[in-house]
Amino acid sequence: MSEENQRTLERFIDDVWNRGDLDTIDAYLSGSYTVAHDPGDPWDGQTLSVEGFRERVRASRAPIPDQSFDIRSMLSDEKTVCITWLWRGTHRGEIAGFAPTGRELTMSGATVYYFEDGKITGHWQIADRLGIYQQLMSNAQGSDG
Amino acid sequence: MSEENQRTLERFIDDVWNRGDLDTIDAYLSGSYTVAHDPGDPWDGQTLSVEGFRERVRASRAPIPDQSFDIRSMLSDEKTVCITWLWRGTHRGEIAGFAPTGRELTMSGATVYYFEDGKITGHWQIADRLGIYQQLMSNAQGSDG
Repeated sequence: MSEENQRTLERFIDDVWNRGDLDTIDAYLSGSYTVAHDPGDPWDGQTLSVEGFRERVRASRAPIPDQSFDIRSMLSDEKTVCITWLWRGTHRGEIAGFAPTGRELTMSGATVYYFEDGKITGHWQIADRLGIYQQLMSNAQGSDG
Repeated sequence: MSEENQRTLERFIDDVWNRGDLDTIDAYLSGSYTVAHDPGDPWDGQTLSVEGFRERVRASRAPIPDQSFDIRSMLSDEKTVCITWLWRGTHRGEIAGFAPTGRELTMSGATVYYFEDGKITGHWQIADRLGIYQQLMSNAQGSDG
């Protein structure tokens, strides 16, 4: 089960977060999805319906439509899969008040995904928010100058 | 080995980072320690000697001497142990130019530790740096007002 959940998570990241194929979400999620811990995420602490999760993906990807997660390491037990990742994307829409610049943004992070009967039920995540904030600030100052 | 490394890491976090017992470091480290990825850490990307690592712990703990890591989850394979954690400590010395306030600071993060023959050889880490920066800013404004 642990290995199978790892393969499921790889496909989930690729289908949903990298390619933005919202129709595949039903195959990966159980009835609900809990954002157990994700500082700075607008949905931190919430339990979402499948439709709510779809809206989260749609809204998160909108300003960075070519975003992609590169999984760097993966560990698992029967109920969880933990990944570390590098993320990149082109800044094409407003993010937290910062106007798009067309520049590349990068970020790193780690996420523990929770599984039940082969379906994803939520996550616990840390991302380097200060790193991306510094890039947004620096790009905004650059485009003003 | 995987289980044994988990127990070793628990003792390492408690002895070295929570209690600041620098004499125990020799028992946990191999010849060197590589900070493979740790955005914002002054030692990010460096390979330290045991003495260099001791200095890193000494300097990191100095402004927050009662700091402690609460391990929330742990996964491992033969060569790595990944933990997620909540951290707290009292701000007693200067941190990145912020004067001490005596207030509690909290942070969350995730760390992958690398092992070789039962010894720790380095880590890959993400911490919520923006969260702690916001607390330092808010406390500084509070003490000015």
